[in-house]
Amino acid sequence: MTRIAILGASGYTAIELIKILLNHPHAELVAATSRQEGAPPLSSVHPSLYGRTNLRCEDLTPAEVAQRADVVFGCLPHGASMAAVPTLLEAGCRVVDLSADYRLHDPDVYSEWYGLAHTDVERMKTSIYGLPELYADQIRGAKFVANPGCYTSTSILALTPLLVYKLAEPKGIIIDAKSGTSGAGRSPKLGTLYCEVNESFSAYSVGKHRHTPEIEQVLSDRAGQPVEVLFTPHLVPMERGILATIYATPTGPVTEKELLKIYRDFYADKPFVRIVDHLPATKDSAHTNFCDITLRIVRGKILIIACLDNLIKGASGVAVQNFNLMYGYPETLGLLPQPA
Amino acid sequence: MTRIAILGASGYTAIELIKILLNHPHAELVAATSRQEGAPPLSSVHPSLYGRTNLRCEDLTPAEVAQRADVVFGCLPHGASMAAVPTLLEAGCRVVDLSADYRLHDPDVYSEWYGLAHTDVERMKTSIYGLPELYADQIRGAKFVANPGCYTSTSILALTPLLVYKLAEPKGIIIDAKSGTSGAGRSPKLGTLYCEVNESFSAYSVGKHRHTPEIEQVLSDRAGQPVEVLFTPHLVPMERGILATIYATPTGPVTEKELLKIYRDFYADKPFVRIVDHLPATKDSAHTNFCDITLRIVRGKILIIACLDNLIKGASGVAVQNFNLMYGYPETLGLLPQPA
Amino acid sequence: MTRIAILGASGYTAIELIKILLNHPHAELVAATSRQEGAPPLSSVHPSLYGRTNLRCEDLTPAEVAQRADVVFGCLPHGASMAAVPTLLEAGCRVVDLSADYRLHDPDVYSEWYGLAHTDVERMKTSIYGLPELYADQIRGAKFVANPGCYTSTSILALTPLLVYKLAEPKGIIIDAKSGTSGAGRSPKLGTLYCEVNESFSAYSVGKHRHTPEIEQVLSDRAGQPVEVLFTPHLVPMERGILATIYATPTGPVTEKELLKIYRDFYADKPFVRIVDHLPATKDSAHTNFCDITLRIVRGKILIIACLDNLIKGASGVAVQNFNLMYGYPETLGLLPQPA
Amino acid sequence: MTRIAILGASGYTAIELIKILLNHPHAELVAATSRQEGAPPLSSVHPSLYGRTNLRCEDLTPAEVAQRADVVFGCLPHGASMAAVPTLLEAGCRVVDLSADYRLHDPDVYSEWYGLAHTDVERMKTSIYGLPELYADQIRGAKFVANPGCYTSTSILALTPLLVYKLAEPKGIIIDAKSGTSGAGRSPKLGTLYCEVNESFSAYSVGKHRHTPEIEQVLSDRAGQPVEVLFTPHLVPMERGILATIYATPTGPVTEKELLKIYRDFYADKPFVRIVDHLPATKDSAHTNFCDITLRIVRGKILIIACLDNLIKGASGVAVQNFNLMYGYPETLGLLPQPA
Repeated sequence: MTRIAILGASGYTAIELIKILLNHPHAELVAATSRQEGAPPLSSVHPSLYGRTNLRCEDLTPAEVAQRADVVFGCLPHGASMAAVPTLLEAGCRVVDLSADYRLHDPDVYSEWYGLAHTDVERMKTSIYGLPELYADQIRGAKFVANPGCYTSTSILALTPLLVYKLAEPKGIIIDAKSGTSGAGRSPKLGTLYCEVNESFSAYSVGKHRHTPEIEQVLSDRAGQPVEVLFTPHLVPMERGILATIYATPTGPVTEKELLKIYRDFYADKPFVRIVDHLPATKDSAHTNFCDITLRIVRGKILIIACLDNLIKGASGVAVQNFNLMYGYPETLGLLPQPA
Repeated sequence: MTRIAILGASGYTAIELIKILLNHPHAELVAATSRQEGAPPLSSVHPSLYGRTNLRCEDLTPAEVAQRADVVFGCLPHGASMAAVPTLLEAGCRVVDLSADYRLHDPDVYSEWYGLAHTDVERMKTSIYGLPELYADQIRGAKFVANPGCYTSTSILALTPLLVYKLAEPKGIIIDAKSGTSGAGRSPKLGTLYCEVNESFSAYSVGKHRHTPEIEQVLSDRAGQPVEVLFTPHLVPMERGILATIYATPTGPVTEKELLKIYRDFYADKPFVRIVDHLPATKDSAHTNFCDITLRIVRGKILIIACLDNLIKGASGVAVQNFNLMYGYPETLGLLPQPA
Repeated sequence: MTRIAILGASGYTAIELIKILLNHPHAELVAATSRQEGAPPLSSVHPSLYGRTNLRCEDLTPAEVAQRADVVFGCLPHGASMAAVPTLLEAGCRVVDLSADYRLHDPDVYSEWYGLAHTDVERMKTSIYGLPELYADQIRGAKFVANPGCYTSTSILALTPLLVYKLAEPKGIIIDAKSGTSGAGRSPKLGTLYCEVNESFSAYSVGKHRHTPEIEQVLSDRAGQPVEVLFTPHLVPMERGILATIYATPTGPVTEKELLKIYRDFYADKPFVRIVDHLPATKDSAHTNFCDITLRIVRGKILIIACLDNLIKGASGVAVQNFNLMYGYPETLGLLPQPA
Repeated sequence: MTRIAILGASGYTAIELIKILLNHPHAELVAATSRQEGAPPLSSVHPSLYGRTNLRCEDLTPAEVAQRADVVFGCLPHGASMAAVPTLLEAGCRVVDLSADYRLHDPDVYSEWYGLAHTDVERMKTSIYGLPELYADQIRGAKFVANPGCYTSTSILALTPLLVYKLAEPKGIIIDAKSGTSGAGRSPKLGTLYCEVNESFSAYSVGKHRHTPEIEQVLSDRAGQPVEVLFTPHLVPMERGILATIYATPTGPVTEKELLKIYRDFYADKPFVRIVDHLPATKDSAHTNFCDITLRIVRGKILIIACLDNLIKGASGVAVQNFNLMYGYPETLGLLPQPA
């Protein structure tokens, strides 16, 4: 059994992670941290856990965490994460960091988009990007992985084959993305109140969303040339799920059938990417680690539709996928039924 | 035109009130208060008002408000309201108070349920309860009216005829009530976040909800004997609407048909109470000032189902109904189409 | 009073229309048709109307309708509408047709997108397109108006100033549109069941939606040159509201500030178009006849966000706006408070 | 591996069952039936299954099913189920019937509430009621089990300890129950359209719901005396989850603390019943096989709140629990993590 600690255990990402790990045959949850006073039972913070764990939400230092755990899943906000990660790694823990702190490799880009200076620059520059469909070789056996953003994974999985095979122009790509509300976190804010979100749909952070440089960094790396996207996020009155509608300009003649085949081949041995013929709905992949993708040619553009569960494939599920690769477990363990 | 000020203009009750008053031919909105800094336009606090009003949310004292307005609608929290009302009334304003501060007549009951001592005891003891279907004679021409609670109006309108005619036992009445989320207000709290409310249903404040003594006070007054209710509120994953399912014990044999007739007669000249044969849904009265009621006999009990829009008939609509009566306008002005 | 009949009174568009007309000082509802047996009360088909109208849903022929009414609002499906309209007009009625039958002017385009031959070709070729912000001069005093589609109005209002002033390329425009579920109608279908729509988001009719040629026809007319759009509709788990996120390529340098000013000037005397600085949400215009629009420059593209209530400004509200213009009433009558 | 067939595979109960069984180490899905033409892939009927099963929806006779499967889960409507069950059992299959056909033991009660004569009377009279918390001894090793209704399980689990220990009067019990919309099935009907259910709450089938006699039959059996309930179901604008608020009259003095202890003892070795101190929300048990229960004393009444996921613990989860008991597998297999 691998002993696991979760930092920042009170949010929506953490509860999904805990539920997956409770079903994982090699995972033993040994610590959960949060800044709540009095070390309340985890099941009082997340009532769905009643009777399923005896863990408490403790206010532990990274050093204390490192004494108990082999691997740490960091669900802290950006900024807080880079304050904790160095101690954990130096103490010998492995870390899957679900924050944004180590996803970007350029400290200037980080400070431009996140508004603060990075304090662990050398590590960020060489961090491993935890999208197993693209970086499994690096993740396998790694000590430290930067888990990707939810919009980011959706967009990258949708666009990579197109750009790798130079089937679309790397500039002028439009990503019109829509997310459920859990992506905004569990801290009470006016904008995420039920009565504000319900029966409403809106765009937000137009031209300014922090997943933009992350998408561009990874796609540029995969494409071998600079990729530029116009990324527009929207808030959907639902809890979970992201759908991205992506518009790209083909570099030459191509059919839908060819595109679907190219994508199926590209993701042939990737158990969590489903290339589908129909138009997928977010509900189809809700509560799973799947990413559903389809493609169309419309009025001369390549239109890609990709969706996934932002809390699972967009955060906690992919974190467990990374954990499995880091420890040499089957990639799907805890996420899909295992062959008998 | 009557000059109107609204205290506490940033919440869900206030925005509904403002929208009704913008359509009211004798209302002129002259002031809106809130504690927000910098006197932001009302339309930045409530974007739906864009282009419909030039009012700002000002941080005005009651005395300043009184200089501008003829009548004040108080949408302040309890406690804050009783700190403002005396000044307003002494300065000559009329007041419709939507808080709970003046609904109860017994200061001990108030302090028991609200956890603070009342500071305007004489006025609370003799305040007029603003449920026009029962107290129109007192409301007509009044200077000051205590606007009822939302669960309260639903329950009282549903039970009054039964108790007035002694058709049901005054003890052991069960009110199982369900409310949309707007009743919990617009201040950010964990419990009213979209991701907590959505796809969930729960009871809350069991045995402790503050509308209990209010329901009992008014029903006892109407029945001429002490009435006791067991009131259980629930939170529904929707924005607006209250439905109460009420179980009462008949004092003697009675049929559904008789009950429906008694209710139709009782509310014959009340334009906002609809006695219906079918089982009403909250959607039927949403965005209106109607209260829909039906009755059934099931297994020896009288079952009453009543519903209304908690923000309109349960708060702002009835406030305008009270305003109309106070000023001698037609009761339905601003709330229903007027005869040509 | 103008005597009004509504054809196809059982759907979501009809109920909104009825509610608006009940508040309209010059409207008298005299007939409502539907194919339901036994002429049920309109209030049993729409329980929210209980006590507000004595109309029944009658199965009347166009000729019978014409005997009772001065003006007919047609809420029939396409195909059915063109079977009824000629009779009504020949009998002297005025007609606002909310179906798609008379919006397009080219019968071949109609049969290509709607899959049936038009049976009233001469009338369709010269029909007046009922978008008052663009065609008020033609609508004023007209006998017959083809009421626009919901996605269509959103898209056209958002793009017209840009194209009229040749600020954007007329080709390659991307309209990524999102609609609430009421747009799909009230006939029971698997795809619009609560449990299918709730907590889900998906694209549909990609590359095939029938509002595409309508958008292009009107924009081409306004631009004076052929306009081509890539239109992608999505279904949002909400009841009402459309938001379109539109991407266009500027023909030359332009700032957000300039664009907002151009739009404000263009719509200066249009009471139902609100050019806003913030990012509008569908909730802001829900239950109103407003269309909210803003613009941004992002990565070299002009990004327009426009939203409206698909049932009101996208259907029934604009129908009443058209009715007002046809009869010479103030354009906002029944839709906005009138000056004292 | 146990070979499993599912009859009536296109609905919401079936899809949940399939998902559980795909994770069950001893289950092999070998057939799925529905009346759809052309034997479409199961994944086209339920897109969430894409890539997870190769099964098709075949229109098989019971005899054909019996040739392939060891055990059959029947998800057919009542009436259809009793037409298929005898053949299956005679052919040697075991059956878990999720319909209402074999839950009641009295054919007259069946025909009174379901409006048709039972055609397999002897079997219904002696059928085993598949609520494992109460009837595990009979279910263990059984060939045929009648799976309980969703409201029924909620109500029975909530009331049984109270009635077994004669802590409450067996008459006059009020069950005010609220259900998500999936309980109404996947056949398109006006009443379950998104736009009808969303933002609405209503009671239905007042005094007439078919789960009433089922609740009374089982509780009377457990209590050893006739139990009478007044059962009122309501429709909640959510997808899954049932919460019952139950009011009973204590037979003598009792405290909340005593009641909670009695319940904890009664369900001590039942892994799926959680007696909680807090007020449970349906979300806490959503997507699980748990039933959460708490109790309060309010104004002299015992108030019980119980909730569960109507599709899991209320249908498919308990069906798998029954399957486990029938085959001697651990009761929690496929439903909870197993000890290492």
